[in-house]
Amino acid sequence: MIVRHMTNYHDELTTVFHALSDPTRRAVIQRLGRGPASVKELAEPFQMALPSFMQHLKILEEGGLIASKKAGRVRTCMIKPGKIKRAEDWFAQQRALWEKRLDRLDVYLMQIQEEEEEK
Amino acid sequence: MIVRHMTNYHDELTTVFHALSDPTRRAVIQRLGRGPASVKELAEPFQMALPSFMQHLKILEEGGLIASKKAGRVRTCMIKPGKIKRAEDWFAQQRALWEKRLDRLDVYLMQIQEEEEEK
Repeated sequence: MIVRHMTNYHDELTTVFHALSDPTRRAVIQRLGRGPASVKELAEPFQMALPSFMQHLKILEEGGLIASKKAGRVRTCMIKPGKIKRAEDWFAQQRALWEKRLDRLDVYLMQIQEEEEEK
Repeated sequence: MIVRHMTNYHDELTTVFHALSDPTRRAVIQRLGRGPASVKELAEPFQMALPSFMQHLKILEEGGLIASKKAGRVRTCMIKPGKIKRAEDWFAQQRALWEKRLDRLDVYLMQIQEEEEEK
């Protein structure tokens, strides 16, 4: 039921941007960009109780930004670039819209300038 | 005091990603990418009480993603691409890290393959 609720009200981009709206979670993504790491390694730079840190990892994993695997007593995390890439694509799409508009604005401004010069 | 609190605990990227972690706010950004629009025009596609919609605009404006100007009774909103661009840059930085790592991984895999072939 919780999953269905999430699917209805929170689309994929909402989940990814929410996951990235926290400096600790962004730092984890940045660290995992250099390669997989254990939870212990990941937690080390943060002055934070482990349960709080695990909560951040949970948000990243549930959002599909990272994956984790337990071997014995060690849980190793790794990045899943797919959804992060789709969030990046959203920016590229927005920028394409602005740039198209700015091109049109340039044309308009040039036309005005030409008309002014002809007066 | 509120401003100082925000500066201490929420850096710029946190604010931008939080602003984008909502489908209504992303739709507003997308609409404003096509050009400035009045609050009335922006609210029109959403089945939402105006005060709730205004709350979304407030989050976008306080986060520096949009600006607004009142002329008479009409408030017009426009996009401010600067911070959105910096959030996009964050993705590019992460991707650069992964790609560097994947290059090294490629080299490693090629070495293994060569060693296998030599056996």
